[in-house]
Amino acid sequence: MADYVYGPGRTHLFVPGPVNIPDPVIRAMNRQNEDYRSPAVPALTKILLEDVKKIFKTTSGTPFIIPTTGTGAWESTLTNTLSPGDRIVSFLIGQFSLLWIDQQQRLGFNVDVVESEWGRGADLDVLEAKLRQDTAHTIKAIAIVHNETATGVTNNLATVRKLLDAYRHPALVLVDGVSSICALDFRMDEWGVDVALTGSQKALSMPTGLGIVCASPKALEASKTAKSLRVFFDWKDYLKFYEMGTYWPYTPSIQLLYGLRAALDLLEEEGLDNVINRHTRLGTATRLAVEAWGLKNCTQKEEWFSNTVTAVVVPSYIDSGEIVKHAWKRYNLSLGLGLNKVAGKVFRIGHLGNLNELQLLGCLSGVEMVLKDVGYPVKLGSGVAAAAAYLSNSTPLIPSRI
Amino acid sequence: MADYVYGPGRTHLFVPGPVNIPDPVIRAMNRQNEDYRSPAVPALTKILLEDVKKIFKTTSGTPFIIPTTGTGAWESTLTNTLSPGDRIVSFLIGQFSLLWIDQQQRLGFNVDVVESEWGRGADLDVLEAKLRQDTAHTIKAIAIVHNETATGVTNNLATVRKLLDAYRHPALVLVDGVSSICALDFRMDEWGVDVALTGSQKALSMPTGLGIVCASPKALEASKTAKSLRVFFDWKDYLKFYEMGTYWPYTPSIQLLYGLRAALDLLEEEGLDNVINRHTRLGTATRLAVEAWGLKNCTQKEEWFSNTVTAVVVPSYIDSGEIVKHAWKRYNLSLGLGLNKVAGKVFRIGHLGNLNELQLLGCLSGVEMVLKDVGYPVKLGSGVAAAAAYLSNSTPLIPSRI
Amino acid sequence: MADYVYGPGRTHLFVPGPVNIPDPVIRAMNRQNEDYRSPAVPALTKILLEDVKKIFKTTSGTPFIIPTTGTGAWESTLTNTLSPGDRIVSFLIGQFSLLWIDQQQRLGFNVDVVESEWGRGADLDVLEAKLRQDTAHTIKAIAIVHNETATGVTNNLATVRKLLDAYRHPALVLVDGVSSICALDFRMDEWGVDVALTGSQKALSMPTGLGIVCASPKALEASKTAKSLRVFFDWKDYLKFYEMGTYWPYTPSIQLLYGLRAALDLLEEEGLDNVINRHTRLGTATRLAVEAWGLKNCTQKEEWFSNTVTAVVVPSYIDSGEIVKHAWKRYNLSLGLGLNKVAGKVFRIGHLGNLNELQLLGCLSGVEMVLKDVGYPVKLGSGVAAAAAYLSNSTPLIPSRI
Amino acid sequence: MADYVYGPGRTHLFVPGPVNIPDPVIRAMNRQNEDYRSPAVPALTKILLEDVKKIFKTTSGTPFIIPTTGTGAWESTLTNTLSPGDRIVSFLIGQFSLLWIDQQQRLGFNVDVVESEWGRGADLDVLEAKLRQDTAHTIKAIAIVHNETATGVTNNLATVRKLLDAYRHPALVLVDGVSSICALDFRMDEWGVDVALTGSQKALSMPTGLGIVCASPKALEASKTAKSLRVFFDWKDYLKFYEMGTYWPYTPSIQLLYGLRAALDLLEEEGLDNVINRHTRLGTATRLAVEAWGLKNCTQKEEWFSNTVTAVVVPSYIDSGEIVKHAWKRYNLSLGLGLNKVAGKVFRIGHLGNLNELQLLGCLSGVEMVLKDVGYPVKLGSGVAAAAAYLSNSTPLIPSRI
Repeated sequence: MADYVYGPGRTHLFVPGPVNIPDPVIRAMNRQNEDYRSPAVPALTKILLEDVKKIFKTTSGTPFIIPTTGTGAWESTLTNTLSPGDRIVSFLIGQFSLLWIDQQQRLGFNVDVVESEWGRGADLDVLEAKLRQDTAHTIKAIAIVHNETATGVTNNLATVRKLLDAYRHPALVLVDGVSSICALDFRMDEWGVDVALTGSQKALSMPTGLGIVCASPKALEASKTAKSLRVFFDWKDYLKFYEMGTYWPYTPSIQLLYGLRAALDLLEEEGLDNVINRHTRLGTATRLAVEAWGLKNCTQKEEWFSNTVTAVVVPSYIDSGEIVKHAWKRYNLSLGLGLNKVAGKVFRIGHLGNLNELQLLGCLSGVEMVLKDVGYPVKLGSGVAAAAAYLSNSTPLIPSRI
Repeated sequence: MADYVYGPGRTHLFVPGPVNIPDPVIRAMNRQNEDYRSPAVPALTKILLEDVKKIFKTTSGTPFIIPTTGTGAWESTLTNTLSPGDRIVSFLIGQFSLLWIDQQQRLGFNVDVVESEWGRGADLDVLEAKLRQDTAHTIKAIAIVHNETATGVTNNLATVRKLLDAYRHPALVLVDGVSSICALDFRMDEWGVDVALTGSQKALSMPTGLGIVCASPKALEASKTAKSLRVFFDWKDYLKFYEMGTYWPYTPSIQLLYGLRAALDLLEEEGLDNVINRHTRLGTATRLAVEAWGLKNCTQKEEWFSNTVTAVVVPSYIDSGEIVKHAWKRYNLSLGLGLNKVAGKVFRIGHLGNLNELQLLGCLSGVEMVLKDVGYPVKLGSGVAAAAAYLSNSTPLIPSRI
Repeated sequence: MADYVYGPGRTHLFVPGPVNIPDPVIRAMNRQNEDYRSPAVPALTKILLEDVKKIFKTTSGTPFIIPTTGTGAWESTLTNTLSPGDRIVSFLIGQFSLLWIDQQQRLGFNVDVVESEWGRGADLDVLEAKLRQDTAHTIKAIAIVHNETATGVTNNLATVRKLLDAYRHPALVLVDGVSSICALDFRMDEWGVDVALTGSQKALSMPTGLGIVCASPKALEASKTAKSLRVFFDWKDYLKFYEMGTYWPYTPSIQLLYGLRAALDLLEEEGLDNVINRHTRLGTATRLAVEAWGLKNCTQKEEWFSNTVTAVVVPSYIDSGEIVKHAWKRYNLSLGLGLNKVAGKVFRIGHLGNLNELQLLGCLSGVEMVLKDVGYPVKLGSGVAAAAAYLSNSTPLIPSRI
Repeated sequence: MADYVYGPGRTHLFVPGPVNIPDPVIRAMNRQNEDYRSPAVPALTKILLEDVKKIFKTTSGTPFIIPTTGTGAWESTLTNTLSPGDRIVSFLIGQFSLLWIDQQQRLGFNVDVVESEWGRGADLDVLEAKLRQDTAHTIKAIAIVHNETATGVTNNLATVRKLLDAYRHPALVLVDGVSSICALDFRMDEWGVDVALTGSQKALSMPTGLGIVCASPKALEASKTAKSLRVFFDWKDYLKFYEMGTYWPYTPSIQLLYGLRAALDLLEEEGLDNVINRHTRLGTATRLAVEAWGLKNCTQKEEWFSNTVTAVVVPSYIDSGEIVKHAWKRYNLSLGLGLNKVAGKVFRIGHLGNLNELQLLGCLSGVEMVLKDVGYPVKLGSGVAAAAAYLSNSTPLIPSRI
């Protein structure tokens, strides 16, 4: 019954999260509960906390593995570092940055919203202007998504850091890396990010359930004076249990811990830089297909192209929701809907996580058939051909099989 | 490596959470991610929300299945129904009620703590006195654990309701049912409970990850004016998505949803009242064993005996922590530690969730051997014999096998 | 370590067996052992034996679910129906019919081999001639593969029956349906097949481990006098336990029984005729791609085209083994090798079992890239386009999702 | 539906096969099919074939991992080493030796049966007499079960070897180690065993599906001239594929190969000698419980006591079948039935495989309650106490947890 929408063959999961889980991770999670106060779980946790830093490219950060989602990780980030009324400069460039801003406002912060047209990146010129003017350092934090999942736009975090340095501005940099970390090039220490966060169901390729937040020493320091009320999300409780060596202020998911172990092992085996390169390949191939179909990328400039998700603009006579519905009903293909301002106007291809070239080509061939079905005059095979031409030149041998 | 503490045979998991997961639930969760915006997941969720009410014995309540733990479910309960400064009468009877009270204080409520000796239940005489005096209705809520997991004490919720009715007091009744719901007799509607909560890793016998909160119409009404800041835990967002029929304000764990489906199916198959009877059997048998060993139950009176967890007091010359450590090291048996005030003084046998008579007897025989190992003059077989004598008379045939 | 050839993303499994297992089958098999002498396993078996007949399209047949492989199922078929020295007319058309013939010879039968060029079907004219001449009925059995997995050739069993009827010849018809049953149109009763067999790892889409053999009443009758020595494969032992209602002469795999239950449930849900149609679609699409690439199908005539496996002939300057090796090393794609006479000359695309359109298109796009890599001047996208054009017109909506 | 006999809690599986599977093995098998002709599977197989020798304590033997059951492994052993008409001295001491003898007779060998009363071991005095007389070496093989699963009798293989050596008799020694290997002390090389066999679902603690046969150099030599017809079970085919480095003459179960890998890893981790010691402990404890209950062990002398299965004789006024039925129906406990001559007279406790002390004590307490239920005047707790007294003195700390 629970499987009543079963279709033959594999479901082609191309939403930008939750994403495909590698079989070894599913296997690792196929297990009983355990006493999390036995010596085994702290021992496992200790190594996980050490290893998880690598996905943030940090050595100085302190990670928190919280039983929550990305939304909870946002809340953990904000309430631990800021006090009600604090001014945050926040960039609205799509549905997920909008939701984060909504949260910031509801939590009582003073949000200074910098809006861009959906399809464009964060307006860093405006940031610069604000920083220049803010000699009194009223801006306590910059909140920015590394990758806006709704539009497929990647922001330039290195520039954010450069601007802050240029104006010697002490604002905290809070980064939503939900659809970037483990897939795009992200450098917490190098870019001076103060809090970065992701969710397990994104590029880590696990089930939903872990909000992973990493705090710089400066963020940890800020948490000592931040006045936002918090308990479940309070880093202090975690730090207390870190100190004691038992690690968990409340019950963790045993299954997700072993799943995280397996996921990190796979990342280690493939190599994080190879993972990032793979995402570059898959993103580029997708964009070439979109171009070959004669369709527009929602992302307006190459500098913002996202290698984890591509939002494809459909002609005005087509409802992109129909594409998503039809793909699922006829080809067992899950695509992402257009959200809010771009609802009906774009559909999204998520190409992040545990995915390879032929999976993507299968998806692209499915999109072509769906486009034809909804009345768009696509040349079948055109997108696949363009993507394959590129992939055929760029895909390396699988290292373990050479 | 992740399994480096492997011991031959099955781990005997007798902590009061997380508990043993039934194989059909593990199987149901052994799966890929899915697009939670496809029609399948809302359809599944809709039925889950309907069926999950049964574990609360409510027809008028509104459930929220939140990706969090019990601590998060507490926070959801409090912040959605109360405003900072609101007066809560709260009962401190052990470590978990203490932690909840700590949360209440940190969230800015005015907590009126009624403390009992650990091992005794909530002092309802004091509650009566407070209600009698509170003609101005300054008490906004009563916060009480149904079952204190640290001491194995079950509170009498029916009496709480009776007192409120007697004084026509409108205070909300907020119940932590973490170690009771699905195991002990709990009646949300009949007892006029306004918010009840549990966690998936307790008597539901699933992995950690779902905080399940159920709100009465009165609690829902209160949530409209409650001023506590909240976003991740805000019921409003859930209700908005319920309305839309998409159900999830953020990504749920696909695996836990199917796991919950399987868990509820098993509850339905066994019958909730049979489940409760089974827990009565297991609790009684455990207490008989403790008595046979000549040891004391931490719970001071029969009226508070818990059928989900028994805290056993050890003689003063024994450190109960040694018992727990030794059980795990020699017999692959996980027992619960004594916490805080009773650290070193009690160890706990969790007998909740997916457990049967022979599993318990195996555990009890293990406890006997451990007691002997740590120098307590137990007669091996004595507790098992006492428990078996009772179980042999009270265990029914398995209905599906008659 | 066991996964040391891990490559990112899903393995694209397109060998003609073992094939892709549906997730619900993997889930059903994720379980402990059980006592096969408890009432539960016979009850399960009883229904399985009834339901498994459907895949043979028989009501009068008696199935045997044997813990073995296809090779064992062959042996069971032969030794239970024939005596040493018995004359069998057997068709050699590829590697698997060759192996079966080898077995027939080694088991002491008098095998009258009718050989065809590899790529052609069984020569039924020769069969007719032999039947015509065999007025003494020295031919005891016709042994024929329904589908030769090495060359992708499907034989015409209806004609075999027609010839036997025409000459009123009593020879038994023994059919290897390993790569046909559950995928191609197979009609045991209508075609008067006496023994048909398949293996669990083929179109049933399970792990290897069950040889499923179905015997007509005439075959059962023959087994009473057949003098071939046999014990493990002896139907008599099975029949004795069927009679007793305990079903198993020796220990079955509990996991495979539950897996078979799940596999049959999925077949029931999709509908066997829909499954067959799906294979027709996938087979046709594959052949259109091969044509678009300018390559030759090993199968020489349309009447023999197989909808479960396509053997593709490569130009003489290419070693087809390199294609298979390269596909695995670079694209995580498993293709079938050319065997024996066609080693190096063909590679095989298995398109049977739990597979859908986009999986196939992903595979075809991979084959294109591999062809390019090994120096064949393929136009990337050409095969996918041809296949997609056909699939786009012929793929129905998924019934459960309409 | 497939789980319609679900009972709450864990099933206590104490039949002497199939036995409890360790969770890491279940996890390892939770996987897709793979191309067994890819480089990965031969690489895995190569190491498995090397490592599996350890369970036989052989360095000179050649193992065959056959997709079959114990019955098939018997057949493989016989047909590869002997010719029809060959004389075998075979010991009938219970149901499984009887079935093997039946197979030997049906396969056309000249079986010289040496029968013992059920409950006694093989009569080696008779063997000595036969060897003494057989100066012409008409005895081609000795076929003997190491452990008779029906009666819980372990034969003395060292003595068999001694006798053969004493008379310089060249007969092959063929040993059924189905319920001994990986649990009892078995020494293929030291005892000069020529073929030893086991099944995966016994002490290896895996699902059914692998018949593992190991041949000495002398047995391999014999296979070159043995005239028994065989194909599926023919070692020659395996050896041919060993030579080629592809290892499999037909499709193996991918899942069982990875399961075997995990099972051997666990054996390695625990240490085979520790595994054997654990079985000694569990067997001794069981016998002490039987004694405490005032019941008789079917095994008549201590020298034959089995550490993997205990057959318990019930008083004549009780039908042992009722005990087995009742245990399953009321306590979710699976015990072994009495078979053939001892049907109704004994029930069996299997204590082999992945099992620890508390599991056994849970089982023993269940047996006590069942005995009481069927009217035997057992003192509840008596058996458990006796077993626990012994286990409490003999159980070591779990090495990985010290």
